[in-house]
Amino acid sequence: MKVYLDNNHATLLDTQVTDAMQPLYTAHYADPQAMHAEGAESRRLHDQAYEKIRASLHATEADTLIIGADTDALHSQLLLAFYMHTIMTGQKNHLILSAHESDAAYQTAAYIASQGCHVSILPLTSDGIVDIALLQQTITAKTALVSVTMADAQSGAIIPIDEVSQICKAYNVPLYTDASHLVGKLPIDVQLLDIDYLTLSTRTMHGPGGTALLFVKAGQTLPNLMQPNHDHAGLVGLGKALELAVDAQAFEMEDVRELRDKLEEAVREIPEHLIITPWALRTANTLLVGFKEVQSETLLWELSKRGIYGSTEQGRHIVTEIGADPAYRHTLIGFALSRYTTEEEIDYTIEKLRDAIDFIRTQRTH
Amino acid sequence: MKVYLDNNHATLLDTQVTDAMQPLYTAHYADPQAMHAEGAESRRLHDQAYEKIRASLHATEADTLIIGADTDALHSQLLLAFYMHTIMTGQKNHLILSAHESDAAYQTAAYIASQGCHVSILPLTSDGIVDIALLQQTITAKTALVSVTMADAQSGAIIPIDEVSQICKAYNVPLYTDASHLVGKLPIDVQLLDIDYLTLSTRTMHGPGGTALLFVKAGQTLPNLMQPNHDHAGLVGLGKALELAVDAQAFEMEDVRELRDKLEEAVREIPEHLIITPWALRTANTLLVGFKEVQSETLLWELSKRGIYGSTEQGRHIVTEIGADPAYRHTLIGFALSRYTTEEEIDYTIEKLRDAIDFIRTQRTH
Repeated sequence: MKVYLDNNHATLLDTQVTDAMQPLYTAHYADPQAMHAEGAESRRLHDQAYEKIRASLHATEADTLIIGADTDALHSQLLLAFYMHTIMTGQKNHLILSAHESDAAYQTAAYIASQGCHVSILPLTSDGIVDIALLQQTITAKTALVSVTMADAQSGAIIPIDEVSQICKAYNVPLYTDASHLVGKLPIDVQLLDIDYLTLSTRTMHGPGGTALLFVKAGQTLPNLMQPNHDHAGLVGLGKALELAVDAQAFEMEDVRELRDKLEEAVREIPEHLIITPWALRTANTLLVGFKEVQSETLLWELSKRGIYGSTEQGRHIVTEIGADPAYRHTLIGFALSRYTTEEEIDYTIEKLRDAIDFIRTQRTH
Repeated sequence: MKVYLDNNHATLLDTQVTDAMQPLYTAHYADPQAMHAEGAESRRLHDQAYEKIRASLHATEADTLIIGADTDALHSQLLLAFYMHTIMTGQKNHLILSAHESDAAYQTAAYIASQGCHVSILPLTSDGIVDIALLQQTITAKTALVSVTMADAQSGAIIPIDEVSQICKAYNVPLYTDASHLVGKLPIDVQLLDIDYLTLSTRTMHGPGGTALLFVKAGQTLPNLMQPNHDHAGLVGLGKALELAVDAQAFEMEDVRELRDKLEEAVREIPEHLIITPWALRTANTLLVGFKEVQSETLLWELSKRGIYGSTEQGRHIVTEIGADPAYRHTLIGFALSRYTTEEEIDYTIEKLRDAIDFIRTQRTH
């Protein structure tokens, strides 16, 4: 049996998405800007996809939607645009990023810091959620942009983005957030949340890899050096994947949550474990856990040998970040379910997880 | 009958490319960086694709290959990287772009110029090819980067990139070139040509849209703010599309050239026409032509009604740029064939083109 539980990094492509994209490859592949009848047909499919995206996020006609390849790249380009347009020009002198952001974003922020801009990284509380009180203390009228994700990619921690947004509004500072790990798990309403910039990735929602969306609220600065992407099929795939994720969210996430909870219950019975972020503060599909004296890589590999595919932290150090027992450093392993995960798979995972941990712990004591 | 002759803008996806990509969507969709067995399988497919790309371009293991969404975006990011790393720091103060580059590149260059950097745009000669003598006069040791495409997207004009490269080397200035409109038409050898940066797009070679490649020569500055793309299927699709384009190039282009020449001969028999760029200086699949007193948009639309899809200049003004008879302004229409174009389609196009031009010219005189 093969059980894929690495769905916060990459997902199976939904066949409904493939079906939606297929005509763009074989029939309506013309440039939507082309002034002939085939171009008009491509344009029609484009417009439909943009409609679906707007409807799914409650975006208006006045908001701008930009298609890119990757949320990390879009976030970095946005940081650079703010650097060039409001920091280099002396209007602002400060960026704030949460500890949930991507390596790519930190790398870009480090470059901007090297040019003399002040960059604040907000740490996590013991719940594994960015410290909102610290945001309140750190933000100033000279802050160019605040970047706080909606949900942590590893732990599934849900960030109270409404509180973050209120603080930003009070200082008139624009807010960027990535919704890739919340979409399809909870509803997203860009109007209600008053979000200025939002990204989404198809690779976490059974869409085609290499396609991402940047939403820019009407009236907000457009990062005018961003170049349009010509991935027509990707746009249509993104529209379809987002529609499916949002439509199915309410009932599908109930099933996913039940299966995740079954796995989580079994994990709680294994001695000496640490679960990151309390149950109620996490997305329905995710469990990030460490087992004392069981190294992440070793467990990942032993599970992989048994046909179960989880994830490691990939360079992060969440145990240290949240101030948990240092004995759990380098032990975290992530399980992220999808709407395709079955009960049979979870039962198998529970059995093999116990087995693998016993095996590793026994090896250590001999 | 439908005849698609807009292949310099978008192409039909080759089923062999789809077949190569399919496993990435349904079986091996795991993150290639994941440390489990499925990640290893994704990595293997990745490595194979990179191998194919290296082999097709004669790139070495030491050269860097970056996957992006779009050649325009990659070019703009490269210009910005040079701006930030060598211009803002005061080492260099000059950029050179040919008149063949994209709107996106000019827009980025205009931004850089607005920050006080000198930007030179090299004009075209009457052959529709960038003026190499002027490059020689314009380049200095303070030039940060020279951007000259390998072949013009509209006219198919082949730029003597070996001469451009020699001039750049003499001044120790790095050279960026886009090969999207030359690949599959003529061999590309990055070693022989001594190219520093080269881009390629899948959308002109029957690959998946939204995938592009940036080649960076070993030892050249890596644009370190470029973010990696996670489009695994796109990478594999690009590898396959490039392999097919290069493998098939020699014999396929003979057939394509014969058909293009048949169309060109028929065009030469129509009174009062202007063909841009002499036959011998053009890629095998392209014909850019104007007919006096026949507006581009009108002809494009009349052809579209007859099932034939060509292209207009999309914002360019080549007749003015090359100093040709002003009577041909706004008359240019492009025909770009592909390896899927048939003789039947070309015969049909010739018949309908004569018909459409007669119709338009008759309308005008009544």
